[in-house]
Amino acid sequence: MALPLAVTMGEPAGIGGEIVLKAWFDRHNGIPPFYLIDDPDRLDRLARRLGWPISIRPIDAPDRALATFDEALPVMPIGTPVRGQPGRPEPGDAGAILDAIETAVRDVQSGRAAALVTNPIHKNSLYRAGFHHPGHTEYLAELAGTGETPVMMLVCPGLRVVPVTIHLPLRRAIDSLSTEAVVEAGRITATALRRDFGVATPVLAVAGLNPHAGEGGGLGREEIDIVEPAVAELRAMGIDARGPLPPDTMFHAEARRGYDAALCMYHDQALIPIKTIDFHGGVNVTLGLPFVRTSPDHGTAFAIAGQGSARADSLIAALRLAAEMAARRLAAAG
Amino acid sequence: MALPLAVTMGEPAGIGGEIVLKAWFDRHNGIPPFYLIDDPDRLDRLARRLGWPISIRPIDAPDRALATFDEALPVMPIGTPVRGQPGRPEPGDAGAILDAIETAVRDVQSGRAAALVTNPIHKNSLYRAGFHHPGHTEYLAELAGTGETPVMMLVCPGLRVVPVTIHLPLRRAIDSLSTEAVVEAGRITATALRRDFGVATPVLAVAGLNPHAGEGGGLGREEIDIVEPAVAELRAMGIDARGPLPPDTMFHAEARRGYDAALCMYHDQALIPIKTIDFHGGVNVTLGLPFVRTSPDHGTAFAIAGQGSARADSLIAALRLAAEMAARRLAAAG
Repeated sequence: MALPLAVTMGEPAGIGGEIVLKAWFDRHNGIPPFYLIDDPDRLDRLARRLGWPISIRPIDAPDRALATFDEALPVMPIGTPVRGQPGRPEPGDAGAILDAIETAVRDVQSGRAAALVTNPIHKNSLYRAGFHHPGHTEYLAELAGTGETPVMMLVCPGLRVVPVTIHLPLRRAIDSLSTEAVVEAGRITATALRRDFGVATPVLAVAGLNPHAGEGGGLGREEIDIVEPAVAELRAMGIDARGPLPPDTMFHAEARRGYDAALCMYHDQALIPIKTIDFHGGVNVTLGLPFVRTSPDHGTAFAIAGQGSARADSLIAALRLAAEMAARRLAAAG
Repeated sequence: MALPLAVTMGEPAGIGGEIVLKAWFDRHNGIPPFYLIDDPDRLDRLARRLGWPISIRPIDAPDRALATFDEALPVMPIGTPVRGQPGRPEPGDAGAILDAIETAVRDVQSGRAAALVTNPIHKNSLYRAGFHHPGHTEYLAELAGTGETPVMMLVCPGLRVVPVTIHLPLRRAIDSLSTEAVVEAGRITATALRRDFGVATPVLAVAGLNPHAGEGGGLGREEIDIVEPAVAELRAMGIDARGPLPPDTMFHAEARRGYDAALCMYHDQALIPIKTIDFHGGVNVTLGLPFVRTSPDHGTAFAIAGQGSARADSLIAALRLAAEMAARRLAAAG
């Protein structure tokens, strides 16, 4: 039996609610069935405020979502009413935000939801409420209890990128780069490409760090000292890794057709090409968790929240990709 | 009277010769008249080897190029025969390579050529012959005798990028970044946009260095310490500079329409987006010289030299842009 996707509320002062309403409105356009873990009353208020004719229907178990989805947006109620208003986060909502995430993880781990799709949170509001994780992904990893560091992949049609270092100042990203980190990211990426993306023999394009991939040491030594040994280790594991490649010539349309994912050494080396190619439709995928998790590749967008102008492209792509990945993983587990 | 463009030979073992032959073959397709400073005999051999029906015609003065261009490729002979073969550079050619550049600079500075378009050189071959400049551009700056450090701009339809630091290892690029360097690049860029690109009130988008432009100091301090003061100085000069902007969200189509050039903090921050968008047609422009100079945005490509497969898109775009820029500069001076 098909399972619905579990979608978290995210920060209720952000655009999460309205993009979910938009995605549900578009449901006949190939959107996989999902339910939202949220406060049904605040969604009702939001839909009315926007003048969108959308019925919100509280459900008491994930499996009710499938029968409901065609007629109304199924919402699994969180215990507490949400108080944040569009653009104005409310510290008191922190508990509800974290509850929604925990419920979703429980649902997917107990086999009642196919995969997890998370709406953006605003870490600063949660830190003040005692949240101590560097981000959403690390929190999920702790809830999943794997002990592994998860790997972030960004996906758009024709390009998948994996930054080996992520939210660090550029200098610190360079300092923290290691052969082990590149190998680990490559190993997790190759496994995910096989299991969740249907790529039988993945090709990984491994970027250099420096201009022209260091020109043999003349423009930096990280390629020789860090990246080349990582490529060799990955190849020794039977993974078709190639590189280090000059970062500027690996992302044009012709080059992209030559690999299944690019391993990038720092945030913007990965994010600049994918956001240049597909600003609105990119999806953030967390690899290395025991379940499938995707999320839209944008933040809470407080500045435009509540206006109904936020684009749902990325959330819709995240829903579709989560359903595809979950179906492949299920088929592989057979 | 219209003047022809002066095109240099570049490294004769590279693809320079064949892309010039291709560009000339395409001359009825809006290519501005040019002459090549090269060894006519080696071009004749190259055309015959490729089986391309192209007449090479030696000329003794730049102004002969205009009358000749429609019928034959006008070539101003360099004094010495070239000995390098496709893919096999010959150290003995270094003198001829430099002569071609010096002749072209003389022609454009004496008002006999409209602008300079240079074919790629191979610095290593020239270093062995006593060439002591970090690159082509610095050599031109010395020949021009301006004492200014020229600025590199890369141009494709819809995007112009200026890397403030260029051929340095990424760590050293960060170390060498300064407010002065950003301001100087911004000032020269704004002047060039007004004079040579016909942009009356240029808007400069100034990138941050770190992910999310440092998030107010949480992800690095270079934005606060270096980039923000530079933006303020540029604005105080009357230049509409904006930033520091998050590097990953400034290069998609919608964002690009909001500015006339992006100032980038390091090589790949500029080169990744432009080569992702337009791998074959990008043009390298040197700003801050007393004459207009463009060049194709690729190297000597020894691996494919002599096969006739190299694409002339970038050289053709460089020829067109040089002619446009020279015409605007002339009109402004007029």
